[in-house]
Amino acid sequence: MQTINVNLGERSYPIYVGEDILSQTGEILRRAGLGKKVGIVTDAKVGEHYLKPVEESLRRAGFSVTVVSLPEGEEHKNLEAVSTIYDRLIRERFERGSFLLALGGGVVGDITGFAAATFLRGISYVQAPTTLLAQVDSSIGGKTGVNHKEGKNLIGAFHQPRLVLIDVAALGSLPRRELAAGLAEVIKYGIIADPRLFSFLEAEMENLLALQTAALTEVVAASCAIKAKVVEKDERESEYRAVLNFGHTVGHALESATGYELYLHGEAVAIGMIQAAAISVRQGLCDRDSFERIRRLIARAGLPTEIAARVEPEELIQYMEVDKKSEGGKIKFVLCEGIGKTRFYSLAPAEIAAGLANGDV
Amino acid sequence: MQTINVNLGERSYPIYVGEDILSQTGEILRRAGLGKKVGIVTDAKVGEHYLKPVEESLRRAGFSVTVVSLPEGEEHKNLEAVSTIYDRLIRERFERGSFLLALGGGVVGDITGFAAATFLRGISYVQAPTTLLAQVDSSIGGKTGVNHKEGKNLIGAFHQPRLVLIDVAALGSLPRRELAAGLAEVIKYGIIADPRLFSFLEAEMENLLALQTAALTEVVAASCAIKAKVVEKDERESEYRAVLNFGHTVGHALESATGYELYLHGEAVAIGMIQAAAISVRQGLCDRDSFERIRRLIARAGLPTEIAARVEPEELIQYMEVDKKSEGGKIKFVLCEGIGKTRFYSLAPAEIAAGLANGDV
Repeated sequence: MQTINVNLGERSYPIYVGEDILSQTGEILRRAGLGKKVGIVTDAKVGEHYLKPVEESLRRAGFSVTVVSLPEGEEHKNLEAVSTIYDRLIRERFERGSFLLALGGGVVGDITGFAAATFLRGISYVQAPTTLLAQVDSSIGGKTGVNHKEGKNLIGAFHQPRLVLIDVAALGSLPRRELAAGLAEVIKYGIIADPRLFSFLEAEMENLLALQTAALTEVVAASCAIKAKVVEKDERESEYRAVLNFGHTVGHALESATGYELYLHGEAVAIGMIQAAAISVRQGLCDRDSFERIRRLIARAGLPTEIAARVEPEELIQYMEVDKKSEGGKIKFVLCEGIGKTRFYSLAPAEIAAGLANGDV
Repeated sequence: MQTINVNLGERSYPIYVGEDILSQTGEILRRAGLGKKVGIVTDAKVGEHYLKPVEESLRRAGFSVTVVSLPEGEEHKNLEAVSTIYDRLIRERFERGSFLLALGGGVVGDITGFAAATFLRGISYVQAPTTLLAQVDSSIGGKTGVNHKEGKNLIGAFHQPRLVLIDVAALGSLPRRELAAGLAEVIKYGIIADPRLFSFLEAEMENLLALQTAALTEVVAASCAIKAKVVEKDERESEYRAVLNFGHTVGHALESATGYELYLHGEAVAIGMIQAAAISVRQGLCDRDSFERIRRLIARAGLPTEIAARVEPEELIQYMEVDKKSEGGKIKFVLCEGIGKTRFYSLAPAEIAAGLANGDV
């Protein structure tokens, strides 16, 4: 088991990464000194696989356990789901010392964190992410929230978890496509901050896709360590934390342009990273060799590398302009200087559009 | 104009207290460096009196202004009201740098603060309280939230305002009964922390009830200073902040037992303070002379001093027991040691019940 600490003063917390950690949930949380009453929030699909061992472990350790099962899927990430949690906590007489445990992917984690942030003016919560994307990204850093019908994550709060429990064995039940989408974010960490991680991914991609737990533990822990450092430097995303948006400017635009139906988030980010790397080459920041390594690794993960033909470059530019990443007519990008280093850049739409059409460097 | 600072590190903020401050809102906020886009949240009753000068002052100072008018009354302090605000902010394209201004009483302030705490993971807000109760209590300290059908303030967050603008001239439109209810909290500050304020109230009660602005400014500023000190010492109410609950143990029980219909909050607190002082005398903590001064001052403010005959002592005890102030069979009380000093005490129900029946010391 590896431990990564997120150092945020009185809001600091550990991330535990390893195999079969979920069955030790009770002991770990008891040692961490959390309250006696816990509400596990999960969805039916995740619950089927992991609820029983987690619940039993908690009861064995003396916790009083309530289970709240939410409907599955991003379309249910809304205030209604949060109200379902409130109602249940009130019925079960949850108090300030009680806490929540989010067992599931990013949707469950975001909703649960927001409920914890806003119940009785804030109670503790624990993240137990079961998808690769949630393990390396959304479970760390305290961003919580739900969607509004007009846009994603418009309602939310910063509320750090008390602990993150990452069981890489849980990835065994993850569909292959979602595994690859999670790997996109792992590749991102390599590009923005860790050439060693990037090389490790090049060497171990087949083992990762075959769910080899030692390799998974290694890359998940390395990713969490990078995310932790970024969050420590800029907890509330005033500026620096945006470095995590490498690949996301084009990625978000792609998701919007295709109605969030064609691509998983990680897939859109994969294409976005290749676009960002290509722009970096055109701006003279990145060498062609690094660009080729990035494109090759993304392809080996089974991720898409090119923008779907049905998407018009002009449409993408429009989405980037209404996105919060636009400022004074220019669009804010995170570019890469080879592998392991980034730079913030503001680009005129015309500078972006050229490459979008054909993916040329 | 008096200035009181609430010192909370990077969350510090000033409270300005004086006459006709609302018409200077624009200048003050511009000097404070707030964003260019503001949403004024108010209700129809308050809006009728104060919206125009505030709105004009803001526009004159170059702010882009949106007004959200909420339905009036505690029964509308719920998630629906918060959603009304979200919808509007989204329609008007509010961004992270935009902010809200709560113009009204405690209900408007609590809802607005919660909307600010949870929109885009937290935007700034300014409190401009127009009732005495909100001016000396709820606008300071960052407690925000709404009610759940099962109980008050169950949904909420700690989110400090960026600035508090207190215009004592706004009290001119306050019904006499609400003015007195606000004075109950002012008297409370005197009892728990400030013998000088208590003596000033004894000397100036008639001037206060006649809305003499110099006297009002004095007692509002003194109250805010005490509230600020308490919040500085215990921002998230881990323990010490509960000193502000002097009179509230019996007060809340009285409000619950009468379905929140017979008493205004301050009226219930007035009776609760006399009960708490009486218990303090019986426990040997408070002298009879101080008790009499407390009872006399409360009566002079036009506040009730005795529990309504229809309320049974046993019923009040039951409400205290289910309230969060009960622990291990005993009920937590804030008692007074004369005027200006308090002590936390846990009392068995029987010790409380005796006095409740007849108000005897």
